[in-house]
Amino acid sequence: MRIAQRLDELGIDVIEAGFAAVSDGELEAVKLIANQGLRAEVSSAGRGIHGDIDAVLKSGATTMSMIIPTSDLHIDCKLHKTRDQVLKATEDCVSYAKAHGLKVDLLAEDATRSDFDYLVKVFQVAVDSGVDRVTPCDTVGILTPDRSFEYFNKLTAIIKVPVGVHCHNDFGMAVANTVAALGAGAQEAHATVNGLGERAGNAALEEIVLSLRSLYKLNLNVKTELLYTTSQLVSRLTGIHMQPNKAVVGENAFTHESGIHTQGVLVNPLTYEPIAPELVGCIRRIAPGKHSGTNAIKSDLLKMGLKPNDEQFREIFQRVKELGDKGKTIMDADVLAIAETVLGLGGAKPIELEEVTYVGGNKVTATASAKLKLHNKYVWGSAIGVGPVDAAINAVKAALAENEQITLEQYNVKAITGGTDAMVEVVVHLRKGNRTITAMGVREDIVKASIEAVISGMNVLKTDYNGNNDNNKQK
Amino acid sequence: MRIAQRLDELGIDVIEAGFAAVSDGELEAVKLIANQGLRAEVSSAGRGIHGDIDAVLKSGATTMSMIIPTSDLHIDCKLHKTRDQVLKATEDCVSYAKAHGLKVDLLAEDATRSDFDYLVKVFQVAVDSGVDRVTPCDTVGILTPDRSFEYFNKLTAIIKVPVGVHCHNDFGMAVANTVAALGAGAQEAHATVNGLGERAGNAALEEIVLSLRSLYKLNLNVKTELLYTTSQLVSRLTGIHMQPNKAVVGENAFTHESGIHTQGVLVNPLTYEPIAPELVGCIRRIAPGKHSGTNAIKSDLLKMGLKPNDEQFREIFQRVKELGDKGKTIMDADVLAIAETVLGLGGAKPIELEEVTYVGGNKVTATASAKLKLHNKYVWGSAIGVGPVDAAINAVKAALAENEQITLEQYNVKAITGGTDAMVEVVVHLRKGNRTITAMGVREDIVKASIEAVISGMNVLKTDYNGNNDNNKQK
Repeated sequence: MRIAQRLDELGIDVIEAGFAAVSDGELEAVKLIANQGLRAEVSSAGRGIHGDIDAVLKSGATTMSMIIPTSDLHIDCKLHKTRDQVLKATEDCVSYAKAHGLKVDLLAEDATRSDFDYLVKVFQVAVDSGVDRVTPCDTVGILTPDRSFEYFNKLTAIIKVPVGVHCHNDFGMAVANTVAALGAGAQEAHATVNGLGERAGNAALEEIVLSLRSLYKLNLNVKTELLYTTSQLVSRLTGIHMQPNKAVVGENAFTHESGIHTQGVLVNPLTYEPIAPELVGCIRRIAPGKHSGTNAIKSDLLKMGLKPNDEQFREIFQRVKELGDKGKTIMDADVLAIAETVLGLGGAKPIELEEVTYVGGNKVTATASAKLKLHNKYVWGSAIGVGPVDAAINAVKAALAENEQITLEQYNVKAITGGTDAMVEVVVHLRKGNRTITAMGVREDIVKASIEAVISGMNVLKTDYNGNNDNNKQK
Repeated sequence: MRIAQRLDELGIDVIEAGFAAVSDGELEAVKLIANQGLRAEVSSAGRGIHGDIDAVLKSGATTMSMIIPTSDLHIDCKLHKTRDQVLKATEDCVSYAKAHGLKVDLLAEDATRSDFDYLVKVFQVAVDSGVDRVTPCDTVGILTPDRSFEYFNKLTAIIKVPVGVHCHNDFGMAVANTVAALGAGAQEAHATVNGLGERAGNAALEEIVLSLRSLYKLNLNVKTELLYTTSQLVSRLTGIHMQPNKAVVGENAFTHESGIHTQGVLVNPLTYEPIAPELVGCIRRIAPGKHSGTNAIKSDLLKMGLKPNDEQFREIFQRVKELGDKGKTIMDADVLAIAETVLGLGGAKPIELEEVTYVGGNKVTATASAKLKLHNKYVWGSAIGVGPVDAAINAVKAALAENEQITLEQYNVKAITGGTDAMVEVVVHLRKGNRTITAMGVREDIVKASIEAVISGMNVLKTDYNGNNDNNKQK
């Protein structure tokens, strides 16, 4: 429901809400969505058999995405039928669905590996039976953009109802193939948020929309500024996270690290940004790193109130690069630590961890205590939590209780792969007022990594050499 | 080094090993790779300035990827130069590099947004100065396949040295654009493993290779069967994990869940597999799920020695779907649990967790104890570990010590996003002899989730209703 409402808000014209015949739960879901009075047309998928059509009717969807295979491989190996039987089934099922008031989109499965003349015959029979749209599916993703153009050019010249395009991404060409088909006369593009779908997935909605808008200058009725949060919503609800280098919506899509790049972006974002981050509801991030140029790091230091002279700056710059050479992802906390060392500042951090102890189990409430040095005074805290990490972080918060203008905005653990003793990388986003910073902890022990990240981030936020400096107060 | 060696083994012709001028560490890395006697040509990147050329010379790379911007935007905003100055710098730098014995590939930055005639002038000057290759870069990923074809068609007709192609993936079209350029006469394609790179990254090596091989039937000297492990190696070393729906190398690229799909694949994999998994060194996986057809689940049950009658099977099938409707990813352990309930088998599992307790901290060695019921007898174990998860799993293993033909092949935690009390999803792969199964634990507490996953997986492996059943032994 939440995804459907969001797609409607986004401006999508047709929502394929589920495969009504698959299970009672899926039927219920389609019903819920069909009864919401959305602006978008709500469709439900099903095979070309009466049972599936009946399920779609029960769901209240106005449209059926009727899947009928047309390649000999599928007709033979999967359906165990003949071409003639499939032709008859097409006529029968489209007529049946139309007679019961459904709008019908005929999805010819494995169309791109089907005999073209036979495919056209199936579509003609469907058109004669009243079909509303037909969509040849590139079920195993074997089109290329030029073949896609040629294919849809030929097909749309013959078929007298609107033709849709449905591409899979097995070779990484789904978006290009979809866009090529639209250029050749296809009128409806099937797409999924984040490119989710069987195997390597389907054509990604956000990439198609941005391509059409920015590369072909088309006016679409899509609220692009909702694309990023839509991607996040789908990630959260499906538990399928996008890789950082995912186009348009990946964590790094608007992140600049390399020196050549940041140097340009700081002067004029157009130099390295084909898409303005705001266009998809995202923000630009300049990441410190070993490829960083001097400009990016200078701008980072200024935010902490640090103004090194030229020689000091060269030294800081050099050390940031050395750290990067060791393979580390560089966080704000690292840049601060290096700058302080070079400038002979700080030394003692505002907060230092002295001791943390946790206990838990399936019959013991996870409990932790923490002892911290806060500006050279000891403070203690204890807390319970849902597990050892939560308890330990809560204990740290409790110890700093009076001191709380800092909030933990996000807590992320990178996927852990390997064994139970693999390295764990924890990244936290902490906020104080308008400033958000990142800090990281890397340990084999997730509890220690988490505490390390939180405390190192808090220390960055509590450091401001522009006068109101928590650090200097103590000197 | 390990990535370079692997690329060499894979059959890559040119390895761009790093930006020698960026830092001492990166210079050292390029040196190491250049001195390995690899079959591949080793190149190092740098800007069109003498200092960067000198760094490349120091590195021992035989080739320089010389980056020179050609768009007015870059020339103006980034270099603060004029077109004429850039022309002169090109002549000067190419001559300088050639005079010092380097092979030179001129990378025209932001070429696709540059004035075409000016770009050609830059390339002509470079050719006259002895350049070996020229590569117009689609720095912000704005090409489309048709424009790419036209662009390279025009360019390769004019330029008398080999032309390369370098595409970014901001709109999801990098692979299609690269392949189109090769079709138009480009002779060298720049690509990165997993499509890594600034922002949305560069064209993905594995997708280009597979497209050329399978869609264009070209014979490449690339050992495709190493592609999957190469992707894994790069993921592990960079810490950047691919999304499950990544083409060619994603976790789901060869996974089939939907009923329509598994039904076909079980008869003939060609129905839904454009790429045979073995071709890239991967294996096929049929995942149980709410879209599963009857065939997939029947084949799962048979492996556990379960042969339900038709009515029982319908009930099992129904319950698996209900579980899927609740949004759960269905594991082997879930299918077994449902089948046992329906068939009135089991009841008591071979292993049941009675009690687990852990303690740890920065001054306490992580230690855990576990009490299990193994075939209705209590067993105890205790162990230390690198953190609470490791200690707890070690304690469970210790308790089952005598019983160990089961190994924990893989322990994965899905990225945790949100707060320290977010749900944690642990998936384990356990092996007993030739059989590998998956099991999952989902809790807010990572320790409990991990134990749940391991014990539930062990119970699946210890269950075989074909006679030698650990479960039946006790009845």
